Amino acid sequence: MDHTLAIDPDRFRRSFEEYSAIGATDDDGLHRLTLTDEDAEVRDLFVSDLESLGLDVTVDEMGNVFGRREGADPDADPVLIGSHLDSQPKGGRFDGQLGVLVALETMRALEDAGIETDRPVEIVNWTNEEGSRFESPMLGSGVFVGNTPLQDAYDLTDDDGVRLEDALERIGYKGDASCEPRPLHAALELHIEQGPYLEEHGNGVGVVEGVYGMAWLQATIHGHADHAGPTPMHTRTDALTAAAKAIREVESLPLRLSEDAVATVGRIDVEPDSINVIPSRAEFTIDVRSYDDDVVDRAIDEAEFEVATAADRAGGEYDLEQIWRIPHTEFAPSVADAAAAAAESVDAAYERMVSGAGHDAKYLNEITDTAMLFVPSADGNTHNEAEFTSWEDCVTGARTFAETTLRLTTD
Amino acid sequence: MDHTLAIDPDRFRRSFEEYSAIGATDDDGLHRLTLTDEDAEVRDLFVSDLESLGLDVTVDEMGNVFGRREGADPDADPVLIGSHLDSQPKGGRFDGQLGVLVALETMRALEDAGIETDRPVEIVNWTNEEGSRFESPMLGSGVFVGNTPLQDAYDLTDDDGVRLEDALERIGYKGDASCEPRPLHAALELHIEQGPYLEEHGNGVGVVEGVYGMAWLQATIHGHADHAGPTPMHTRTDALTAAAKAIREVESLPLRLSEDAVATVGRIDVEPDSINVIPSRAEFTIDVRSYDDDVVDRAIDEAEFEVATAADRAGGEYDLEQIWRIPHTEFAPSVADAAAAAAESVDAAYERMVSGAGHDAKYLNEITDTAMLFVPSADGNTHNEAEFTSWEDCVTGARTFAETTLRLTTD
Repeated sequence: MDHTLAIDPDRFRRSFEEYSAIGATDDDGLHRLTLTDEDAEVRDLFVSDLESLGLDVTVDEMGNVFGRREGADPDADPVLIGSHLDSQPKGGRFDGQLGVLVALETMRALEDAGIETDRPVEIVNWTNEEGSRFESPMLGSGVFVGNTPLQDAYDLTDDDGVRLEDALERIGYKGDASCEPRPLHAALELHIEQGPYLEEHGNGVGVVEGVYGMAWLQATIHGHADHAGPTPMHTRTDALTAAAKAIREVESLPLRLSEDAVATVGRIDVEPDSINVIPSRAEFTIDVRSYDDDVVDRAIDEAEFEVATAADRAGGEYDLEQIWRIPHTEFAPSVADAAAAAAESVDAAYERMVSGAGHDAKYLNEITDTAMLFVPSADGNTHNEAEFTSWEDCVTGARTFAETTLRLTTD
Repeated sequence: MDHTLAIDPDRFRRSFEEYSAIGATDDDGLHRLTLTDEDAEVRDLFVSDLESLGLDVTVDEMGNVFGRREGADPDADPVLIGSHLDSQPKGGRFDGQLGVLVALETMRALEDAGIETDRPVEIVNWTNEEGSRFESPMLGSGVFVGNTPLQDAYDLTDDDGVRLEDALERIGYKGDASCEPRPLHAALELHIEQGPYLEEHGNGVGVVEGVYGMAWLQATIHGHADHAGPTPMHTRTDALTAAAKAIREVESLPLRLSEDAVATVGRIDVEPDSINVIPSRAEFTIDVRSYDDDVVDRAIDEAEFEVATAADRAGGEYDLEQIWRIPHTEFAPSVADAAAAAAESVDAAYERMVSGAGHDAKYLNEITDTAMLFVPSADGNTHNEAEFTSWEDCVTGARTFAETTLRLTTD
């Protein structure tokens, strides 16, 4: 097979700018939390773009939006391409959105070239990939593959107590189509790397062969609220200083466990949160990851030990809850090989790698052959407004993506 | 002088229960933040009690409520007694309220006994002593003594952006009387100790001869928001792990500086506050105190050094702002001596001590001879719902307080 699918970089760029304007921040970032007004607006644009292409648009019960382009074989299973349009709070313009837009440009390029693929191609925008408004990431794809019950997803609430189902209804994206596994031939997602390696190695494309295993823990240290003045240091049970000790130890865990492990405390809250009161309660999250599931398990155990030790030395108590755990993923070699061959065919410098971040593709891999493409992140920067991928890298990624898609639909 | 002023313990108890019911929490605490509906309700009760006693009630521009009982000498300066009726969030029933109620019982006892004092006596309830809703403690007394400009106090906002002046107007306690220094003969305040020493030493009363110097700092560490997965540990600039290091060092400062010093981090917030994003910003408060002002100054310097070092090691930046600083206070020996003599006359076991907590009396001391009485706090417990002083100790405190007041009005 030697054809290539010609994308239109100018049109791709125009769409990128148009989509980036919805929820744009003053500092060139994107604040487009799932199921907000901004998310509704970008979904409307997406649906309109799909309809302009003559695609058959479906919205499922989770608000996942699909656009289907039929192939020559009416009985063939479709190839699914896409990513997510929601963003982190004050996040960047590339995370998620770029993966949807390379899929959109691929659909447009197929139409331009008048290609009838053997298999159908479906483009998708997944709901609540980020998990920052409703704290369960990759939720739309998680329900789709049968990992999360629909009702559990519906019952999630944001910090203001809004239920996810109500948020879906409010913006008119609680669809009728069933959100459940169905036969797919393959799935492909392009994403920014969100790490430093492609840039460091001078490669424009990463062929992603797997994803780290991950766990999220919620730790609470219980101390005793007392007045910051008359309470001597030695009689205190300070939940925050204990938490600070645990946080320092959690930071040092990866060094002790493996070369690839990472550990992060991203949230912390104290009570009563008063400047002159010793904190009676400190609640914080722990995120641990490695490609080795045993390392993640050990990290969970050691994190609990450190939280327990810190609480105990302060004279307090603790709780530790595992709120999310997902083993490492090995993507389908067939799809990764197609992506590598596509990279070669468009002369992209590429490397094979694994991902430290979770992606919808990780869930898709549970029901179909899946892999991913990465493009470089300048300075490894992500989840903030300065997130950046050069336009040249975006175009190289789009060319590789379109070509991979074509190969998956026809080989 | 050998008379004593007889208080009525049962009446005192009934008032304590009645006042404690307003803003009561499920766990026997008090949640009565300044200028809320609950504060309005307890103020109305207080005003009604003062009017029942025939006192001349005045509300000033800061919402401070005064009740005046005239003395024999129409030209004499009054003795001012009282404390505050606002509470910490989910605070206790004794902090502040007890000091107002022993003053109220003293007024009632004077009336019962038909005593005409030489000097007038005024009872007071100060606005926003706690500083937990509007973050400037002892605010009503601070404006009264000329420490804080009225307009600055009016312009303070709570976490919901409500201005203090608007909050005063809303509950009908923005009075007409000028809030400014005026001649006083002396001021006396009873308060719970909020520390462990009276209980440890088996004394029922503390004669407070001074108050610690204090400083409040606001520290911010600036890091870099990146994805918790693909960002290797060694390339991170994590604002929270840096803050955790600084918090640990701040906790150890008192040990290095003096026997009496204390240091507390009561509040912390991170951004973007997302479970899988490395914090780009960690903001926390530092409260340092000592009776020795030089120790407080050194604690401020060392706290800044620790914040700077932690930020620097993480590769980040920092800001440190001093939001409040007050030197140590030495109370008037004449008033403290009167209190000690009163304690002896009612057979209360007492000790002389200094206070680690700020109180309205600290400001009053700037314009008149002032001292305080402490009663024990069980387990040194305060600023939470379990705050407790035995009723026996409350009565002993009230007897000592009434007797001290009588001495101040007539000697």
